[in-house]
Amino acid sequence: MSAAIYDSENIFAKILRGEIPAHKIYEDSDVVAIMDVMPQGPGHALVIPKSPSRNLFDADPQTLGGLAQAVRRVAIAARKAFASDGVTVTQFNESAAGQSVFHLHVHVIPRFSGVPLKPHSDTMEDDAVLAANAEKLRAAIASD
Amino acid sequence: MSAAIYDSENIFAKILRGEIPAHKIYEDSDVVAIMDVMPQGPGHALVIPKSPSRNLFDADPQTLGGLAQAVRRVAIAARKAFASDGVTVTQFNESAAGQSVFHLHVHVIPRFSGVPLKPHSDTMEDDAVLAANAEKLRAAIASD
Repeated sequence: MSAAIYDSENIFAKILRGEIPAHKIYEDSDVVAIMDVMPQGPGHALVIPKSPSRNLFDADPQTLGGLAQAVRRVAIAARKAFASDGVTVTQFNESAAGQSVFHLHVHVIPRFSGVPLKPHSDTMEDDAVLAANAEKLRAAIASD
Repeated sequence: MSAAIYDSENIFAKILRGEIPAHKIYEDSDVVAIMDVMPQGPGHALVIPKSPSRNLFDADPQTLGGLAQAVRRVAIAARKAFASDGVTVTQFNESAAGQSVFHLHVHVIPRFSGVPLKPHSDTMEDDAVLAANAEKLRAAIASD
């Protein structure tokens, strides 16, 4: 096992510090939730704990309850906002598992019957689409 | 949104009641963890909360902290037991998202660089393989 080093210059750390923008949909004392800019499907959101850790391996166990509760809130909002048939939740630890940003985060993706997830890509979604989907999610969370 | 009905005759409910066997690797007051009998990769485990819910949508938020902490413990054990390069965590809500057993559960799957996950299938893994992998996970959890 390699030493898991937390690099505070990762993109989510910069978003948490407000150094770069993001489409924020939810925030509480434990987490920030934002839109994934390279979504695997419409409404793909990320729930990011404020507490710094590379991934689940080095996460403080005490911070995971708030993360899990926020994931549930965002999942319920995602179903409502996009009238989805289901919601896929994924969390990747290290590159071999698909992790590409090394600050713990959870993917919350609305799913529709018969529609496969798009693969991860390096294609940025149109910013207006992200902004519109973020507004739908914010409205759904505000009404829960 | 269809009414989400919890059917207490689902296979994980039966396992939790001890009515059918499973390769158990971990148990605490909140969860049981077992081997997935149709693994997407070697060492694929499931963390199942004892509290009944169909999935994340109807889960009691108060039960999610214990679930998340158990997922972390099993993920750390999976990396150690199989010397994996990473661990993928997935959780599916409703059929459109890939859910096939309607009791909330989280998949914890060791990952190896360059080796894709096998698709879900209806092929049962050899019981001796599951037993051996379960023993590796139990040993890793016991030593954490």
